[in-house]
Amino acid sequence: MNYSMISYILGWIFNFEAAFMILPGITAIIYREKNGLAFLITMLICLTIGIPLTRRKRKSKVFHAKEGAVTVALSWLVLSIAGALPFIISGSIPHPIDAIFETVSGFTTTGASILNNVEALSHCMLIWRSFTHWIGGMGVLVFILCLLPLTGGYHMNLMKAESPGPSVSKLVPKVQSTAKILYTIYIILTIVEIIFLLIGKMPLFDTLCLSFGTAGTGGFGIKNDSIASYSTYNHVVITVFMILFGINFNAYYLLLTKKVMQAAKNEEVRYYLGIIGLAIVAIAINTREMFTSFGRAFQQAAFQVGSIITTTGFSSCDFDLWPTLSKEILVMLMFIGACAGSTGGGIKVSRFLILGKTLAKELKTALHPQVVAPARMDGKLLNHETIRTTNVFVAAYIFIFAASFFLISLNGFDMVTNFTAVAATLNNIGPGLEMAGPMQNFGCFADPAKLVLIFDMLAGRLEIFPMLVLFMPDTWRRF
Amino acid sequence: MNYSMISYILGWIFNFEAAFMILPGITAIIYREKNGLAFLITMLICLTIGIPLTRRKRKSKVFHAKEGAVTVALSWLVLSIAGALPFIISGSIPHPIDAIFETVSGFTTTGASILNNVEALSHCMLIWRSFTHWIGGMGVLVFILCLLPLTGGYHMNLMKAESPGPSVSKLVPKVQSTAKILYTIYIILTIVEIIFLLIGKMPLFDTLCLSFGTAGTGGFGIKNDSIASYSTYNHVVITVFMILFGINFNAYYLLLTKKVMQAAKNEEVRYYLGIIGLAIVAIAINTREMFTSFGRAFQQAAFQVGSIITTTGFSSCDFDLWPTLSKEILVMLMFIGACAGSTGGGIKVSRFLILGKTLAKELKTALHPQVVAPARMDGKLLNHETIRTTNVFVAAYIFIFAASFFLISLNGFDMVTNFTAVAATLNNIGPGLEMAGPMQNFGCFADPAKLVLIFDMLAGRLEIFPMLVLFMPDTWRRF
Repeated sequence: MNYSMISYILGWIFNFEAAFMILPGITAIIYREKNGLAFLITMLICLTIGIPLTRRKRKSKVFHAKEGAVTVALSWLVLSIAGALPFIISGSIPHPIDAIFETVSGFTTTGASILNNVEALSHCMLIWRSFTHWIGGMGVLVFILCLLPLTGGYHMNLMKAESPGPSVSKLVPKVQSTAKILYTIYIILTIVEIIFLLIGKMPLFDTLCLSFGTAGTGGFGIKNDSIASYSTYNHVVITVFMILFGINFNAYYLLLTKKVMQAAKNEEVRYYLGIIGLAIVAIAINTREMFTSFGRAFQQAAFQVGSIITTTGFSSCDFDLWPTLSKEILVMLMFIGACAGSTGGGIKVSRFLILGKTLAKELKTALHPQVVAPARMDGKLLNHETIRTTNVFVAAYIFIFAASFFLISLNGFDMVTNFTAVAATLNNIGPGLEMAGPMQNFGCFADPAKLVLIFDMLAGRLEIFPMLVLFMPDTWRRF
Repeated sequence: MNYSMISYILGWIFNFEAAFMILPGITAIIYREKNGLAFLITMLICLTIGIPLTRRKRKSKVFHAKEGAVTVALSWLVLSIAGALPFIISGSIPHPIDAIFETVSGFTTTGASILNNVEALSHCMLIWRSFTHWIGGMGVLVFILCLLPLTGGYHMNLMKAESPGPSVSKLVPKVQSTAKILYTIYIILTIVEIIFLLIGKMPLFDTLCLSFGTAGTGGFGIKNDSIASYSTYNHVVITVFMILFGINFNAYYLLLTKKVMQAAKNEEVRYYLGIIGLAIVAIAINTREMFTSFGRAFQQAAFQVGSIITTTGFSSCDFDLWPTLSKEILVMLMFIGACAGSTGGGIKVSRFLILGKTLAKELKTALHPQVVAPARMDGKLLNHETIRTTNVFVAAYIFIFAASFFLISLNGFDMVTNFTAVAATLNNIGPGLEMAGPMQNFGCFADPAKLVLIFDMLAGRLEIFPMLVLFMPDTWRRF
């Protein structure tokens, strides 16, 4: 294990965390909030640990996939624990496990909260909560890759471990340039959303927080009713942007480089939009009688479908009261998730496509043993490696889901609560149903259950493997 | 498509169905029940269709995996529809879809019933219902293979399509001899159970019905309270035999041929017994306060765990009233299922073992890229083909589950009912929870929902592929 390299990168995590806190710090100054001091204290703590670590000499440049996974998992743990300090120091969320739950929920873009009165938080705390979504959405290591002049071949191992989806495609040959392009698109889209929300007469502070939440597909609201009290125009803007941030960013890059045809051919994006369309229509018809008009039902269905499939988790109404069919569609969307290479979570549309295509191929081979019919995606042959890792991912996902479902049940809630609480955290969505429903919060779970859900949120965001590697004794054994 | 061969085998299915009905026929004579006439009429119908079909000349002996799958799927459909005739003709279950549901539930060893008053059925109808479990448990084509002097290489394709588990191992080189050995073990175990139940002073008729239900891991009871009203001794006997029939029959063959060490080394059986042990202890502790003593809680837990993991589905008490943790354990056992090569359903312990082992191998490879660590089971290398078909099975299972869950929800029940109804039929268990709970029945579902559940029961018993192949338009296209 290349400890010197890992501690070097962790050092940078501390330094960047300090830098990220400049935003809530400024907010505290503008609103003259005294508990903004908590950010200053945390920044000093981070820099005290971070700067010496980044100054130490790196002994070796050998950096395998194993080190990549461990580094990413540790980075996210460090990020979450240091990020929770302002909540604890300021007394906004005094209980450490609650504060860590809230921060992990932020960075992993889950958006599940333990707070029952969000409006009691000060402005600087609110913007920090939402900003963690934005950082976690595209990934903090991807961000560091943009800015640091790192040398050596380990960039790809870091990016692979942090980026969602069955396979990471570099947009351009250099990993660093890919990271820069991704963040540029991300920033531009975020700014466009802010402008659209401002046009809708939303206050600037709210536009920032909600745009961060949408961009990272996180879902922390700044009001107790999530975003139900905003105007229909703003609901529509947020719906559109949630869906946009769930699209594979490769498609945007192709559009920017004027490869429109190639972007339009992306099968994952087409299925993703197709599923969204079907789900909206089905739910709108099913909930028709709960709303004053079909248009209203359609708009609410669109909002909820966009919010759940992209795993954002904003809620504009209490969908726990909807008919069973609509609730089941939402539960299924929870698992499908957004596109690979987006900021969204879940199992990802492309993984289901790969499963479906291998199944179809297998059936075809059974019918016509003499015909060679390999599975294809976007016109290209499906890599054997991609199929294998997808299958292994599904297996790992099932085992982690079952284990969490079992452990959570010790908490004593009903089965729908337990099932959807695990689904909502492992898929980084936020709200589930019943006790974990959109109008409830996760504060009612006991500490051990919260720890399980914290693990699930991290496992969901990092797509399981880095977390498994981190906890395997074999990883830490010397050879 | 080799139509002449398929119709030849279907002809034999009709003939054998007629032969199977001798048992309820004799029962009708003994109990002087007039509606036994329905069996005579059905036998005549079956023979009228069957005999000409078996007399026709077979044009070709070419018989691929495709034909094997189609033949098995069609055989089971024919078996179920013809098997439902006595219920319809006698008026015992006048509605055709209900009668087919009940018969499919019988042959697939599901044990889900649409009847709310089982005790109203006559003896000949009751024994036919239970006998279908026994026939379906080991498989009707396996039975035909024992007796018919079939020639050509297609035995294996039929046996593969009907036998449960990720891979079929021939006990002896000849398929026909393997089928004979399996049925011999099956008959002996059934007789031993009958004797043990007779010792417990159960009436002979009841011992026959319940032994057929246990042997096939079916679960039809002959009383309205399933088997709750029998003595504790009989509960214990049934518990033990349910667990025995869920064991891979290869292990029994090894025991018979005195390869005790080899039988003891079977990983699937060891994990199966281990899971049962853990689940019993966990549920007994969790439900301790609901019973008069720990011994009683342990016995009830053992019965329910044995009943669910082997997918039998007898109930000795209303486990829908148990605490959430216990219910969740039972729901998880529903999916795990019994061993491959047993009469039990579910996904099968061996498939989970294969998934777990490939996952462990993948993690090991990530940690030590230079070490070659292939996955092994029972000391042997895991075949690449077996891993692939297991993965494809899991994918198909997930898609069918999701589609059924969605279609069933149109029926308007709650989510737990829908989820467990699909789980209980696709895994061939019988009772689910809530509206599909052990003290309820499936009669409350509408016809379209029943058709979906009928498909799920057949797909579960035949492990999905034959049913998918049957419904693919490509199968029926000429080349």
